Amino acid sequence: MQWYFVAALLTILTSSQGILTTLSQSDGGYKYDYATVPFLAEVYKLLVSSFLLWRENKSSPFPRMTTEWKSMCLYPIPSLIYLIHNNVQFLTLTYVDTSTYQIMGNLKIVTTGILFRLFLKRRLSNLQWMAIVLLAVGTTTSQVKGCGETACDSLFSAPIQGYMLGILSACLSALAGVYTEFLMKKNNDSLYWQNVQLYMFGVIFNMARFILDDVKREFEQGPWWQHLFNGYSFTTWMVVLNLGSTGLLVSWLMKYADNIVKVYSTSMAMLLTMALSVYLFDFKPTLQLFLGIIICMMSLHMYFASASMLIPDVLRGPEEGSHGKLPLISKISGHRQPIFKEKDIELPFRHGLIVGLLVPWIVQWHLEAPVLFVPLLPFSTHQSCRWRLIISTTVEMGLVERIY
Amino acid sequence: MQWYFVAALLTILTSSQGILTTLSQSDGGYKYDYATVPFLAEVYKLLVSSFLLWRENKSSPFPRMTTEWKSMCLYPIPSLIYLIHNNVQFLTLTYVDTSTYQIMGNLKIVTTGILFRLFLKRRLSNLQWMAIVLLAVGTTTSQVKGCGETACDSLFSAPIQGYMLGILSACLSALAGVYTEFLMKKNNDSLYWQNVQLYMFGVIFNMARFILDDVKREFEQGPWWQHLFNGYSFTTWMVVLNLGSTGLLVSWLMKYADNIVKVYSTSMAMLLTMALSVYLFDFKPTLQLFLGIIICMMSLHMYFASASMLIPDVLRGPEEGSHGKLPLISKISGHRQPIFKEKDIELPFRHGLIVGLLVPWIVQWHLEAPVLFVPLLPFSTHQSCRWRLIISTTVEMGLVERIY
Repeated sequence: MQWYFVAALLTILTSSQGILTTLSQSDGGYKYDYATVPFLAEVYKLLVSSFLLWRENKSSPFPRMTTEWKSMCLYPIPSLIYLIHNNVQFLTLTYVDTSTYQIMGNLKIVTTGILFRLFLKRRLSNLQWMAIVLLAVGTTTSQVKGCGETACDSLFSAPIQGYMLGILSACLSALAGVYTEFLMKKNNDSLYWQNVQLYMFGVIFNMARFILDDVKREFEQGPWWQHLFNGYSFTTWMVVLNLGSTGLLVSWLMKYADNIVKVYSTSMAMLLTMALSVYLFDFKPTLQLFLGIIICMMSLHMYFASASMLIPDVLRGPEEGSHGKLPLISKISGHRQPIFKEKDIELPFRHGLIVGLLVPWIVQWHLEAPVLFVPLLPFSTHQSCRWRLIISTTVEMGLVERIY
Repeated sequence: MQWYFVAALLTILTSSQGILTTLSQSDGGYKYDYATVPFLAEVYKLLVSSFLLWRENKSSPFPRMTTEWKSMCLYPIPSLIYLIHNNVQFLTLTYVDTSTYQIMGNLKIVTTGILFRLFLKRRLSNLQWMAIVLLAVGTTTSQVKGCGETACDSLFSAPIQGYMLGILSACLSALAGVYTEFLMKKNNDSLYWQNVQLYMFGVIFNMARFILDDVKREFEQGPWWQHLFNGYSFTTWMVVLNLGSTGLLVSWLMKYADNIVKVYSTSMAMLLTMALSVYLFDFKPTLQLFLGIIICMMSLHMYFASASMLIPDVLRGPEEGSHGKLPLISKISGHRQPIFKEKDIELPFRHGLIVGLLVPWIVQWHLEAPVLFVPLLPFSTHQSCRWRLIISTTVEMGLVERIY
């Protein structure tokens, strides 16, 4: 199975997960206890992995399974890191509001790249680093509060602890991701065996939570398994299955692809969710969402496209890459030949000028507004004030047109 | 003189021009007639160029000057295109508001790239095309209306003619730029001689405007030269000199660099102006400005950096660029060796984990908030509602943390 196929599937599932969760709300709230969803997802993943492992066991060659404690004892670590991360997350939200938190969440993309480099010793080209930063910028852009929305200046006004915690939580979530990748790749154990160990601990941790929760509540609502499925609807089950499948895809990616692929899938999923929400929940489409999508697409291409596709060798100089150098200059400073062969250039320009004059001509007929050869129009007395306005605004934009 | 030095100078002058123009306003309006500024700038440029040409004439070798009419008759064309462009610009603003117009103005970056390719036959790599699009996206991002500002949904609500005219005006301004570059490079005439011809027509066109303006007004305020300097202050003269020098730099770039360099300079200048305005006119710094600056910096690097700097050869595969390919996958599918040497990876991870646990530990001491090994905190009864809120919001962001 190709990694990009899995990544695309992950994107679709992740974004549909956001939508399903919204759909699973009834009158603005969750009838069910949301904490039960990850637990059941873990159980689902454990069952699927065990089944697949069992099937693999019957087949030959016998799957590789490292069973010594030294290796197994590493598998709870990701769960532990996520546990700490969730608490830090919770603490962060006591300092900053959710929108600021959401913006800071994009730091995770950059921190993942950094830890990926530091711990997994994977080398990235400058271009790939730029792509990673652009991905973070793109997702942030799509989340910029549009006008008409409230709580504007809250972004730069949170206490310093809020930002520190935001960075910390970004680092922790990156660490968990990178560590999982390390676990999956450190030996050639069967993926299903690794999953079984991973999800085993996942289930245990979730159960521990419920029990501690019950203890807190002095069992006033009875043990946790009695009110596990309270308020579960069909959609809720879909959410569980979806979350579970997403997890399985992620661990596949961790073994056969890497964290960056996962980061791209989830980021793209976020944009997809926002784009779909425009249709499903008729949100207003914003310019920043549109821009964000373009930026992330560019970043995706920058990161994964092959060098030869991005910079064809014909555009590379013999000794050092002439990509971005200005060949014409060197030509000039070199020998004193005209830079263009007149015949090559004159013709397209003739056409260009004809079109450039023809279109305004059509426009001025169509709109009955003089555009062509009417220099005095903008300076006729009653319009001169508006004309000034235009010039002044364009000047303040630093975009004034010069006639040189 | 190096082209990037000139480009940097152009950026500084262009941005200071926007600021000077704002400073030259007195009580919110212009005391002087803004239309006189470009005229005087043309005169200034003509004088400077003539002086330099005269000095060059005394020196040897004698500068190349093509004097036949066939070549000279091309020099008014840019002025003509700009004249049409200004009228189209004026017409556009009768359909769309200034902020929408400003946003659409960024199309100029892309159209310049396209005409540059079509007419000047300059080949750009995919990466450079992406850089150009990113530059447009970046400048647009910085102009996204922040919250609290009015006139939000006006962007998508303008009549279709508005958008068509916006595109037309982007094409016209690009055409003028590209044609000027063609004029400057089509032969090896002395730059100063080319300038003299260019600015000669510039002066004539501006004078024609004034005369037509007077005719319109039936000379009620007397001929134009009498009220030319009305309301001129020191700042106004600075604006004139600044505009003139900018023009001279642009024509230098047109001969020895190209349009794309000019586009980058002016775009960067716009961002610089916005950034400086935060300090000078205490505007509120916005997130989108910050993001826009990052995007444009990336774009700049993508366009001008050498291929070898962006993608070191070591990261390129022997036959086809392995940049962005996932080497680990192929390793796995290949032979069944563990992907990592344990000793290489274990150690940094030990350190990573120690830090990852140490920092939250310090945090929880510093903030007196339990973060570490306290799974029950978020589930304690009175906080559980907030905890749900966090999970639900993070889920809706499609960014929920999975424990797998």
